[in-house]
Parts: sequence; C-alpha cells; structure tokens
Amino acid sequence: MPKLSVRIDLDGGERIGPGKIALLKAIGETGSISAAGRELHMSYRRAWKLIEELNAGFKRPLVTAQTGGKSGGGARLTALGKQLVTHYTAIEQKSHKAVTRHLAALQATVRRQR
Amino acid sequence: MPKLSVRIDLDGGERIGPGKIALLKAIGETGSISAAGRELHMSYRRAWKLIEELNAGFKRPLVTAQTGGKSGGGARLTALGKQLVTHYTAIEQKSHKAVTRHLAALQATVRRQR
Repeated sequence: MPKLSVRIDLDGGERIGPGKIALLKAIGETGSISAAGRELHMSYRRAWKLIEELNAGFKRPLVTAQTGGKSGGGARLTALGKQLVTHYTAIEQKSHKAVTRHLAALQATVRRQR
Repeated sequence: MPKLSVRIDLDGGERIGPGKIALLKAIGETGSISAAGRELHMSYRRAWKLIEELNAGFKRPLVTAQTGGKSGGGARLTALGKQLVTHYTAIEQKSHKAVTRHLAALQATVRRQR
C-alpha cells in the first residue's frame, strides 16, 4: 500500500514532519536522546542537533535533558512536546484514513502504466 | 492558518511531494519547462533535473519535451503526468479538509505556550 506522510507548517514558522516526530516519540519512550537516536539509526550528535532545532523553532523546549548525575542523564518530553506528538499522530492518522481510496486509485493508475 | 503538505511513497518506490507536483502543474499550464521553472523561481537546469528524476522514478515519462523546432521547443504532461497531478491534488485537499480542526487545535496549543 502507498504511504502518506504529512508535514505541518504552523503560522509562527514552526515546522514538523515525520522525522522530528519519530525522534520525539522515541525520546518519550526511551527517556534518553542517545537511546532514541540508536532506535532511529541516527548519531547522538544528529539527534541532539534536531532537538536543538526543534526547541529553538518552537521558542519553548519540547525536550528537556539532564546531563550527568547519578543516572547518567536522561531526557523527557515537556507538556508541549507531548501535545505535539499527540496532535501530529492524530493528524497523520486522520489524513491517511480520509484518502485511503484515493491512494489505492493512484497506485492502480501508476501500476497500469508500467 | 497552519498548512498541511503531503508526501506519497508508492509501493514501487516512486515518491511525490509538493515541489514536484508544483513543477508538473506549472509545465501543464505554461507548456514549457523554462517558463515553469521561472514561475517557481527555479533554474532551467534544476527544473530539467527534477523532471528527469520524475521520469526515471516512474519508469514512464510524466513530461515529454520537444527540443528546437519552429516553436522553439515546448513541453507537455503525458496522460500519466496529468493523472498524477489530479490524484495528488485531490489527496492534498481531502487530507487538509479531514484535519482542519486538528490543525487549528495544534496551532492554538502552540500559541498558548509561547
């Protein structure tokens, strides 16, 4: 089946898409930027850079990280980070559901022409 | 209002998104790759490269171009190219309509946190 992915441009210039949301989700699940990066086959440096971009883009943190300490640091989503993931996931699912038939028709059109 | 854009990955590995579709649409309207490129503030070289990528990705041409000749060349969409634009546009509009409320809620969430 064809796959739909969505990108959202908010009116303050903030942008979210599947890559950044996957990273936020993985941080929420693992409690760690490095573990989230590994899960997504992304270097720690790359994961950090994306998080910095997201936090700067939204002007408020979506992720907070503790460095060092007894537990060796850790990261978690802020309330805003969690809300973004929830809204984005709902938007992605609703969009996909609304166009399932159209996607199948597009796929059939392309297949016929091969 | 926030803006939703969609990308579609077909099951043969073909990919379409807003940039390529805008180029196809502009070629359909102007009958020319260079005019379409100008409309999208894209160099002729860049427009040609995108079209070559699209034609190769779909294994069938989406755009045919005549070079030289009395009218100095020209380009038009193939039947497959036209169908892609039509399906993509419908998918984009239906997706947007299905999630309008969600987009507004997301925007309000982000605005409240600023």
